[in-house]
Amino acid sequence: MTLPALSISYVRCIIPFRFKILPTLVCKMSFVSVAPDSDFPIQNLPYGVFSTADNPKPRLGVAIGDSVLDLTEVKHLFDGPVLRGSQHVFEQSTLNGFMGLGRAAWSEARQTLQKILSDSEPCLKDNAELRLRALLPQNQVKMLLPAAIGDYTDFYSSKNHAYNVGCMFRDPKTALNPNWVHLPVGYHGRASSVVVSGTPICRPNGQTSPDETKPPVFGPCRLLDFELETAFFTGPSTTLGYPISMEEVEDHIFGMVLMNDWSARDIQKWEYVPLGPFLAKNLGTTISPWVVTMDALKPFKVPNMKQDPEPLPYLQHKDDYNFDIKLDVSLMVDGLTKPSVITRSNFKYMYWSMKQQLVHHTSSGCNIKPGDLMGSGTISGETDDSLGSLLELCWKGTRTVELGNGITRKFLQDGDEVIFHGYCEGNGYRVGFGTCSGKVLPAHQL
Amino acid sequence: MTLPALSISYVRCIIPFRFKILPTLVCKMSFVSVAPDSDFPIQNLPYGVFSTADNPKPRLGVAIGDSVLDLTEVKHLFDGPVLRGSQHVFEQSTLNGFMGLGRAAWSEARQTLQKILSDSEPCLKDNAELRLRALLPQNQVKMLLPAAIGDYTDFYSSKNHAYNVGCMFRDPKTALNPNWVHLPVGYHGRASSVVVSGTPICRPNGQTSPDETKPPVFGPCRLLDFELETAFFTGPSTTLGYPISMEEVEDHIFGMVLMNDWSARDIQKWEYVPLGPFLAKNLGTTISPWVVTMDALKPFKVPNMKQDPEPLPYLQHKDDYNFDIKLDVSLMVDGLTKPSVITRSNFKYMYWSMKQQLVHHTSSGCNIKPGDLMGSGTISGETDDSLGSLLELCWKGTRTVELGNGITRKFLQDGDEVIFHGYCEGNGYRVGFGTCSGKVLPAHQL
Repeated sequence: MTLPALSISYVRCIIPFRFKILPTLVCKMSFVSVAPDSDFPIQNLPYGVFSTADNPKPRLGVAIGDSVLDLTEVKHLFDGPVLRGSQHVFEQSTLNGFMGLGRAAWSEARQTLQKILSDSEPCLKDNAELRLRALLPQNQVKMLLPAAIGDYTDFYSSKNHAYNVGCMFRDPKTALNPNWVHLPVGYHGRASSVVVSGTPICRPNGQTSPDETKPPVFGPCRLLDFELETAFFTGPSTTLGYPISMEEVEDHIFGMVLMNDWSARDIQKWEYVPLGPFLAKNLGTTISPWVVTMDALKPFKVPNMKQDPEPLPYLQHKDDYNFDIKLDVSLMVDGLTKPSVITRSNFKYMYWSMKQQLVHHTSSGCNIKPGDLMGSGTISGETDDSLGSLLELCWKGTRTVELGNGITRKFLQDGDEVIFHGYCEGNGYRVGFGTCSGKVLPAHQL
Repeated sequence: MTLPALSISYVRCIIPFRFKILPTLVCKMSFVSVAPDSDFPIQNLPYGVFSTADNPKPRLGVAIGDSVLDLTEVKHLFDGPVLRGSQHVFEQSTLNGFMGLGRAAWSEARQTLQKILSDSEPCLKDNAELRLRALLPQNQVKMLLPAAIGDYTDFYSSKNHAYNVGCMFRDPKTALNPNWVHLPVGYHGRASSVVVSGTPICRPNGQTSPDETKPPVFGPCRLLDFELETAFFTGPSTTLGYPISMEEVEDHIFGMVLMNDWSARDIQKWEYVPLGPFLAKNLGTTISPWVVTMDALKPFKVPNMKQDPEPLPYLQHKDDYNFDIKLDVSLMVDGLTKPSVITRSNFKYMYWSMKQQLVHHTSSGCNIKPGDLMGSGTISGETDDSLGSLLELCWKGTRTVELGNGITRKFLQDGDEVIFHGYCEGNGYRVGFGTCSGKVLPAHQL
């Protein structure tokens, strides 16, 4: 039996009846066609911000298959008890307002979306005029940053990555700094330079010290790298001076994106002592446009990484808050006919959970606002083909990465495009993140 | 001859005629009374944001003597060629819009303000009804943050401070890291935790390692400190990837405030390797409410500090961009009847200029937006009574700071209030910053 004309959602909805599996568990079907390998079935429903050629106003949307549901057109349908009085958030030009409403609102919005997009609900499906206005082809919209990012923080929470970098710049015995196993090390990044996938990234200029016996030099970065990361957006505001406890923290984690933390290794090496990375990182940070909610990721929970030593009590949580999110990085460069996958990693290699990161972040009393962005840090797996940066893949320049056709790289060249993918594999469907990509342009003269 | 009823502006306006000094050079007189020691004569005219009990809407104001000029009430008077079409910026709830207009607009606004506040111009002086609405007593307004701060960066540009800290934690021979004399070291801070003067600051909790042979502990910070800094606000936006050159940079520096970069020394020591200060700094950063413009500070230019080695070409500027701004810090603590001055420093001790800081910051292509905040770093003078932090004043806890009445401090205790002042001394007048203060409250339980 072949079902070429039916979406994967449709397939899965048929199966239960044939095999008598409980329909409520798996019957998730949208009247919108969804390809089997789509990142955006009705189980996902990520939020983003978009504009169109004929309407440049940024507005909120939800991805479904190859379409975008324009939330401004269906805001009146969010008429549950929580959202009834807050429909104005769906008319805003960023997700910040919606993010700030909290988990009850997020959950009700998801239920509403699953209902109005389902095959059994006529309100949108059978209203041709509304459907025409509200459902737009994804390839005809321009995706924008999903939120006005007030603050951006980047953590350093993959043990494999921290260990690899420590080995390269120190030695295996002292690879991890003493604090690393006791707290999720992080630092404040630059919010203004966070851009949406597809935005070109200019090679930065900067000071470097290629020869320590001579004065530093200024010019285009020679060791430009990517860092394979994810990031989460925060929810409701907190007040300065009031930490978030582990019991409350889940209420402040809205959803996740892919993130490329572009890094200028030579600039970083010269500038980072003693106050940390600065210009090596603020040349640009790229995120994927669709924010996948924690509700959508829930089915893909896996056990937390074992932590030894046991963290201090304020950082302990017993529930699993780790996720099986497959990640890969491709390079598209001159001379290739299609992007070449150079590494495959997984979010599950995170040592510190997002809960621990956010509790630690606010333990000082630091306040958060809706739409703050919290990066994971580079996520490296345990093997040589699962490393999350060129620094590790080429092991500090001592080996090359093969792209095919005899083309190799150690670090990024002008014109190279870096493409991240990420998805969770369900039973016959995917909850995906789409892509997070950016092409390197030459440095501008100063 | 005594002139008790006349303001200092009035006095200075009389002098030229008596001594035949050119009136246009010094005759700056406002019809608003200004006390001789006021921070806010007509030569200053700093911008801020305020609200009142009967109108909680934040609005823009200018300080003049003990009054605030409400710009929403006089916006129609900004009718010069640059501002005529942009009067809406004076109706906004932050200064960001005005900051984004650029130097021509700032300059024209200053001319307009000096005109409408002058004794010789009737438009406001002789309009009793408008005067009543537009001029409010400063002690009846609530000052708010002057801008929505998109990003906050903190530099480390006082050589005395960097040297002192280096001596304490390393030794005098290696006190300055090799990069320090080649570039203005800086790092990204947390924008959400920047608060306006008067906001209480809660002692942070955090991880510290009081005994390196044992695991770290979690609890209230024991070594809470202030850092005496100034900061500048940025003007018009730039585009990611496009550095600001030294020739252009003055167009992007709007004005200055005092800043207390509260610091948790014990938390910082444990957390800061390798990615820099994080929770030790995001417990709160206090700024003074009035932004003193670069035009107002121009008469107080002093020679740049001599830089050896000569900076790389992109960081060189020949014109003076250093300022004689007297700074002092007082502590008000239980047992004192009035605040005790514990240090007197000066902005002129900065090694790296604000021009160099901003050019360096954007040399990577990092974009700025109107209302970004750039901190100077702790400004320490050359003597023991001009150090900019308790860490230095108590020399890492090896000596005490005397407050009078037998009261001493090494670090801050709950209930202590830290008060910064700053002003430039003119010929018979001051261009001042007002105060930047904050009181320490006990840590909240996590």
